[in-house]
Amino acid sequence: MSTIPSLPTAKSIQVDTRGALILDEESPETRDSRGIYLPNYVEPVSHIAVDIGGSLAKVVYFTRSPEPPTSPSIAATKGSNTASNVTTPESVSPGKLTPTTPSSPSHRHDALSRVNGALTPAVLDNGSSVASVLPPSLDTHFRDSLLRRASVHHLPGGSLNFERFETDRVDECVEFLQTLIARSAEINGVSIEEMRKSVKIMATGGGAHRFHELFSSELHVEVRREDEMECLIEGLKFISLIPDEVYYFSDELIHSVSHTPAVPFKIPAIVQNGVNGVYERPSPDPPKYAVTFEQNPTPQLPCLLVNIGSGVSIIRVDEDGSFERVSGTSLGGGTLWGLLSLLTPATSFDEMLDLSEKGDNATVDMLVGDIYGQDYTRMGLKSTMIASSFGKVFKKDGKKVKFSAEDISKSLLYAVSNNIGQIAQVDFISYMNAEKYNLDRIYFGGCFIRGHAATVGTLSYAIRFWSKGTKRALFLRHEGFLGSIGAWIKNIEEERPERE
Amino acid sequence: MSTIPSLPTAKSIQVDTRGALILDEESPETRDSRGIYLPNYVEPVSHIAVDIGGSLAKVVYFTRSPEPPTSPSIAATKGSNTASNVTTPESVSPGKLTPTTPSSPSHRHDALSRVNGALTPAVLDNGSSVASVLPPSLDTHFRDSLLRRASVHHLPGGSLNFERFETDRVDECVEFLQTLIARSAEINGVSIEEMRKSVKIMATGGGAHRFHELFSSELHVEVRREDEMECLIEGLKFISLIPDEVYYFSDELIHSVSHTPAVPFKIPAIVQNGVNGVYERPSPDPPKYAVTFEQNPTPQLPCLLVNIGSGVSIIRVDEDGSFERVSGTSLGGGTLWGLLSLLTPATSFDEMLDLSEKGDNATVDMLVGDIYGQDYTRMGLKSTMIASSFGKVFKKDGKKVKFSAEDISKSLLYAVSNNIGQIAQVDFISYMNAEKYNLDRIYFGGCFIRGHAATVGTLSYAIRFWSKGTKRALFLRHEGFLGSIGAWIKNIEEERPERE
Repeated sequence: MSTIPSLPTAKSIQVDTRGALILDEESPETRDSRGIYLPNYVEPVSHIAVDIGGSLAKVVYFTRSPEPPTSPSIAATKGSNTASNVTTPESVSPGKLTPTTPSSPSHRHDALSRVNGALTPAVLDNGSSVASVLPPSLDTHFRDSLLRRASVHHLPGGSLNFERFETDRVDECVEFLQTLIARSAEINGVSIEEMRKSVKIMATGGGAHRFHELFSSELHVEVRREDEMECLIEGLKFISLIPDEVYYFSDELIHSVSHTPAVPFKIPAIVQNGVNGVYERPSPDPPKYAVTFEQNPTPQLPCLLVNIGSGVSIIRVDEDGSFERVSGTSLGGGTLWGLLSLLTPATSFDEMLDLSEKGDNATVDMLVGDIYGQDYTRMGLKSTMIASSFGKVFKKDGKKVKFSAEDISKSLLYAVSNNIGQIAQVDFISYMNAEKYNLDRIYFGGCFIRGHAATVGTLSYAIRFWSKGTKRALFLRHEGFLGSIGAWIKNIEEERPERE
Repeated sequence: MSTIPSLPTAKSIQVDTRGALILDEESPETRDSRGIYLPNYVEPVSHIAVDIGGSLAKVVYFTRSPEPPTSPSIAATKGSNTASNVTTPESVSPGKLTPTTPSSPSHRHDALSRVNGALTPAVLDNGSSVASVLPPSLDTHFRDSLLRRASVHHLPGGSLNFERFETDRVDECVEFLQTLIARSAEINGVSIEEMRKSVKIMATGGGAHRFHELFSSELHVEVRREDEMECLIEGLKFISLIPDEVYYFSDELIHSVSHTPAVPFKIPAIVQNGVNGVYERPSPDPPKYAVTFEQNPTPQLPCLLVNIGSGVSIIRVDEDGSFERVSGTSLGGGTLWGLLSLLTPATSFDEMLDLSEKGDNATVDMLVGDIYGQDYTRMGLKSTMIASSFGKVFKKDGKKVKFSAEDISKSLLYAVSNNIGQIAQVDFISYMNAEKYNLDRIYFGGCFIRGHAATVGTLSYAIRFWSKGTKRALFLRHEGFLGSIGAWIKNIEEERPERE
């Protein structure tokens, strides 16, 4: 060991992601919380990460297993990323990203049935945890040999598991963690007291401070706090390395894809360059582009991260991982759900999204055409552009007209998404143009997005339009879990010895 | 006349504004539509300007009179612009700019009683219009002499008059114009047909196209269309020349003003530089600054004009008067009024504003402190900052909690104002920093503002905060009439012979 100060080296994430696979969707409600199988990650992990936001608490934990818990479905994980594997428009429609059935915690399974596998306390990392998953029918000699190898190579891999809870029902989250810890003790054949000594909760998000006392007193385990923004960035750095995690709207219109001969496939010029080189403005009903999943992750920094939860934070992440919250807005997911719960009979996020898909915003929004009777060509404003969201609702004579919940939902979803897209693109374009930052990627994360076609579409169009088609909005399957993944990753780094 | 192309010369406005005075307020509902007395403007004017927006139609016309229709009240027009004439905080409180009683068209006077004076057809510009306003008791010789002078010097001056109508009740506007034309014919002693030949309607705004046919068929006068943005800019250029028209929040806190010895007056350093050099973020309840009226108008271009009507347009005006709509948002006045008419029992703008003044947004908005339990110091987010507008409303378990109309109004008014301030400041700061544009003034106009203290305060704070206290948001008494004033001015220029 030398005492000469060493140059700083790029910190690499200490989780082996080679061969990582996103597992199949169990049900629409687990769309964004599918497990990730890491066949080559072999360390014991007994910490649990919890990111407690204004509305949702997100849990991440790792369990070891000799094979993927369920076989990954190629169709479900790969989507399309080349023209040749575009099959039918339906199979790659962004609409498919949307949960189709309403869900609420009361419909969900109880804590026990939600727990996947078991945590592995480091103290037991002598092969016994492998023994517990090997079939007892194995030849004893072969079994011993496997266990010897396992103690060296830490076979097998395992899975990252994801769970969501309402922050208002944090007791459900606590119950889930209690069950997970108790079950892990049982499977590993150790006492609950021993297990608790081994488990750590890495808490992040706004609620990490508020609920610190509750978690430590109820769970009897160590609870550590991690900085929210740091965790978001760590989470993004990790998750964007997973194949098929990152997705975006391709340049291929669904319509063109389905109406163009497959061989030789050629993207129509009208789509590549927009109509007459003009890129469509964002709108509540944009033409549908095909969704493409990034199979081969590319370097993800520097980037702008727009994290859309109850509120919105916009964070610039530089090439070295340092970051700054450059702006944000209080008009986020909480605003949409809050107003819609006052204005519609919907009682869940997904019911609101369902409503919005059936709505026509033109009954409540004042369009340019409603004011001008035509395009305002000189200013480049098309007649279909929204001049004033909800501008048709107010009637000064006091007559209250009844508007449909569907139309209201569509209008508000578009207004909130478009406003975020507008604020985000301003930051993006200005940092993109600032040579110093060399920025050309923008990720949208956070629970607000929910893979909803209209939201993803609006944000994609905003970036496409304002960057004149040169840049794309990037989305993440595990959009809401960046903070909890980051808290989990940060502790992996801390637990491992420094490598020189 | 030479055929050699001449260099373009700066176009000057052809209306003599020397000695211009803003007339006293008749009632709270005429706060933004007080007449402007122009003692030195002597031309006959028989055109009427109408700016028809998505929600309101704004009318401007000029009538000649030997003296101001009512004596201008110094207190009402001057406000404060130096420390020495700050008297009591109450007299300069921005709250004073707010209408205190609800108003709706049904409470307003009928068309006839709203008509002020008469238009003067150019054809009659031989003194007879002056004759009509001279007392008949005058000595005949003196009277003739006055009339001779009048035909040369175009004595006397006159007043610009302002009226507002709902676009949905455009028939009321038509009736008003019919009455104005008929009364002008009567006063000038000409037939209605002759009068109609002399009158022109200059129509601008989105509705100029839609209602063109209605205006010409109902009024039997020529209707010309003028470009909306051009009129806005012309209107701004003219109106900002009027003393006491432009106002802003000074650097003097109401509190400090009222608690600091008057002589010698010194602005406390804490106010000048913010607390520890940190400028307060915009918030729903900012400390109250004194309102200052600009008595001596200064050059107003280049500038950014943020026009807030049903929707919002942000326009960059260069030094030579050329302009570009650089951005905008559909979240404007129409959104606020539309949503509040769905969410509260209020049936007029002013009822909604009244509600908002009594509300507490913290019951519906999720504050940083609600999530973190404290400031998020590392990110510079104070616990009182709004993290998510309406973020406390949504409860996933379906229980609908009742929120007060007052709290909802306050939250939404702040959310919309702050969002506009945020979008505007980004444009402002970026053009301010672009050497090419040399921009350092930002005006907020449009009917949404209504001189409402919370709106003016929020926009002022946004600009103050983001420019680090170096710039101010500027407001206009006739905020909603820029377009119609511009259409009126443009025609003055057209009617006059070119001056070489």
